[in-house]
Amino acid sequence: MSKIITKVLPGFMELLPEEQIEFDRIKDVITETYKQFGFTALDTPIIERSDVLFAKIGGETGKQIYSVENKQGISVDDSNGTEKANLALRFDLTVPLARYVAEHFNELSFPFRRCHISKVYRGERSQKGRFREFYQCDIDVIGKDKLSIYYDAEIPSIIYQLFRKLNFGKFTIRINNRKLLNGLIDSLNTRVNTVEILRIIDKTEKISENDLRTQLKEQGLTDDLVEIVHKFIKIKGSVNDVLSQVKQLGIENELFSEGIKELQTVTSLMTNMGVDSDYFVIDLSIARGLDYYTGTVYETILDNYPKLGSVCSGGRFDNLASYYTKEKLPGVGISIGLTRLFYQLRQIGIIPCTKKTIADVIIVPMDNSNINVSLHTAQLLRTNGFKVDVLLEEMSIKKKFQYVNKKDAAFTIVVGTDEELSGKLTVQFKVSNEIKKQQISLSSLPDFLNSHFEERIAR
Amino acid sequence: MSKIITKVLPGFMELLPEEQIEFDRIKDVITETYKQFGFTALDTPIIERSDVLFAKIGGETGKQIYSVENKQGISVDDSNGTEKANLALRFDLTVPLARYVAEHFNELSFPFRRCHISKVYRGERSQKGRFREFYQCDIDVIGKDKLSIYYDAEIPSIIYQLFRKLNFGKFTIRINNRKLLNGLIDSLNTRVNTVEILRIIDKTEKISENDLRTQLKEQGLTDDLVEIVHKFIKIKGSVNDVLSQVKQLGIENELFSEGIKELQTVTSLMTNMGVDSDYFVIDLSIARGLDYYTGTVYETILDNYPKLGSVCSGGRFDNLASYYTKEKLPGVGISIGLTRLFYQLRQIGIIPCTKKTIADVIIVPMDNSNINVSLHTAQLLRTNGFKVDVLLEEMSIKKKFQYVNKKDAAFTIVVGTDEELSGKLTVQFKVSNEIKKQQISLSSLPDFLNSHFEERIAR
Repeated sequence: MSKIITKVLPGFMELLPEEQIEFDRIKDVITETYKQFGFTALDTPIIERSDVLFAKIGGETGKQIYSVENKQGISVDDSNGTEKANLALRFDLTVPLARYVAEHFNELSFPFRRCHISKVYRGERSQKGRFREFYQCDIDVIGKDKLSIYYDAEIPSIIYQLFRKLNFGKFTIRINNRKLLNGLIDSLNTRVNTVEILRIIDKTEKISENDLRTQLKEQGLTDDLVEIVHKFIKIKGSVNDVLSQVKQLGIENELFSEGIKELQTVTSLMTNMGVDSDYFVIDLSIARGLDYYTGTVYETILDNYPKLGSVCSGGRFDNLASYYTKEKLPGVGISIGLTRLFYQLRQIGIIPCTKKTIADVIIVPMDNSNINVSLHTAQLLRTNGFKVDVLLEEMSIKKKFQYVNKKDAAFTIVVGTDEELSGKLTVQFKVSNEIKKQQISLSSLPDFLNSHFEERIAR
Repeated sequence: MSKIITKVLPGFMELLPEEQIEFDRIKDVITETYKQFGFTALDTPIIERSDVLFAKIGGETGKQIYSVENKQGISVDDSNGTEKANLALRFDLTVPLARYVAEHFNELSFPFRRCHISKVYRGERSQKGRFREFYQCDIDVIGKDKLSIYYDAEIPSIIYQLFRKLNFGKFTIRINNRKLLNGLIDSLNTRVNTVEILRIIDKTEKISENDLRTQLKEQGLTDDLVEIVHKFIKIKGSVNDVLSQVKQLGIENELFSEGIKELQTVTSLMTNMGVDSDYFVIDLSIARGLDYYTGTVYETILDNYPKLGSVCSGGRFDNLASYYTKEKLPGVGISIGLTRLFYQLRQIGIIPCTKKTIADVIIVPMDNSNINVSLHTAQLLRTNGFKVDVLLEEMSIKKKFQYVNKKDAAFTIVVGTDEELSGKLTVQFKVSNEIKKQQISLSSLPDFLNSHFEERIAR
């Protein structure tokens, strides 16, 4: 029989167990941190009505949508057989949030804090580091009619706590406020396409100064105005330095002043929230491509790997769900593209994946007569909170130890006739890469493993 | 502007935060229990090649498949633009497991233990309690060429531990071995469609005795043979009773004898693994619809809600991935259809969903001047492992307490001017539905909450 292709589809990530363990560990750190700040997880269908998805998008993202169809047509009927709908896979978690909040508005309490960590789909042309199925890890706080600027400060304090824990090295949160750029362009008194100009400014780091100037001119800015914009986005320094330099520009524009005030509130509150001032800067060139941001915007750069670009981005928006409801729903949030980030960090080589099992302990009965004691030991350890795999398969001793060595669990416990007679099990474990063996009685086993487990975790 | 339909699609489950919290709690109990037995989580794409999915199925399930297409055709090219593939959404987690093991065979170590908790898709005609998108929670142990019968005993011991923790009341694990039924039919020396007969037998509980006999006759069994089959599947009693009655039948058939031996091994080992004998029976009528089971089979019934049917089922199969690889891969596993189970338990009313936040603590600054102390307190509590939501929005006191009351977090901490001056915060908490208030200094707060938290958890 000719066998069917089993290779994973291009643009899809499929991990080996040792990689998956590390991926899940990172995902768990993100989830736990979001929860620590009171964000409740949501879960929405991966399939949405095409209408819902297409309300907001067009252009490139529109072309990337996967449509879904049950050829029997069953999928498009509701229970009464009256409703027809075109279906598609979601391309982000923000549109489903907007639909969710609009639909369940009366049952939610505001400010509404939700986290959502799940897969989204984009039929992108496949290339290294771009995925067609990928995890987004989002949090948003949504207000009813209004949302305090204080939430704009809480969000980067969450980024700070999170990336400290993730331990990918020093990072910098870049903060800006769209009101500054919008106010600046507004103050120039010239008719230009603000969205296009923001897109160009957002590329500041990626293109040369010359290209930046040329592209701004192409948008209708005179040389003088290009100079003003250029000088503005290049202002650098400590948070206080930048704020005072910006004030000294003397730009008289209400939006601009509001932007300064908000940036000041956000950055001073961040300090009160315990965010180390070494870990954030004001970067006036950040606009974020998405045109729905209206105030504070964030990017996060790993200092040692700036080429990865922003690994956690987001911002403030005025109205989440205008396509789906008349309620005004301002909000602020961030997103991490975890699949891509994981791929990049693996490429760089800073994520070692050595553990091939989530078990803390592997118990090896030497032969079938030792199965009962092995199972009894396993149950005792599980009751004490350990994850235990008992190697129940009949194999040669050599193969049994091949299994154990590949897995790299913290402990191996050998149960043989000698052990059963002496009442002491043989525990194998590593201390700084050296394998140690010790005979331990069943009753002392949980305490023994606990004390050595901490060593292992700490390494 | 006319607004777009935001209602969730029929056949899809979308939960409110308080329901989602409970759903996730149950999912976490399942995940943690699977992990305790050393099952490492896998995650495979939701989209598979149609070829892969259709290799094994036809009939009803085949009609239920959702196909996926990117209208731009981008999704079907690989990075070289050479490969074309039809895509579809997976309808279970077993086919992806088979493909995964076939594809990564050389990189895995066997016996391979994996758990997979994720969504699958079936375009079923929508009716109450049937879902088109639903979670399956699977574990399987896969062997290379062979897999010890001991794993057949470990699986129901996991079911036992899991459902004890889930606390849905008394349950019974029903165990059988397909070799008994296959051997019995074989011993009758008559040419019949064994698969069809097993399907009928599997319905024993749902149809009348008369219907059972009629349907068996329609398959070509004589009255005498129907009587033998009927008598066989009605054998009841303790595990040892059933085994001795079955032996006394004196059926001489190799497969049948093997089945008895396996059932004996599995049930005696389960007792050694600490499974209470009140929680499992041998039920000779269980065949399980899927025709790939070849040995031990399991069902799990909630004793108080037998109408729900089996809430956790599975069994032993001879060869997982024959469509995808020449390697022989026997295995044993179970699956829980969590979405449906959750829906049913909600209908019955045994899952209360009162918590509207995952936060343990909500901190309420009385006005903006109390924000800094509130944030400082929050950070201290987070460092001590608490999940904390600070209500940063400016609202009337009345609205602030509406927010707090709706959420039902374990603790509310009020920070006002009085509190700041006295250095003691007001902590509100419930003891047996009575709200208590206490003034606690910041430094004593973590200990105070910890001691009262246990009370809350224990209730």
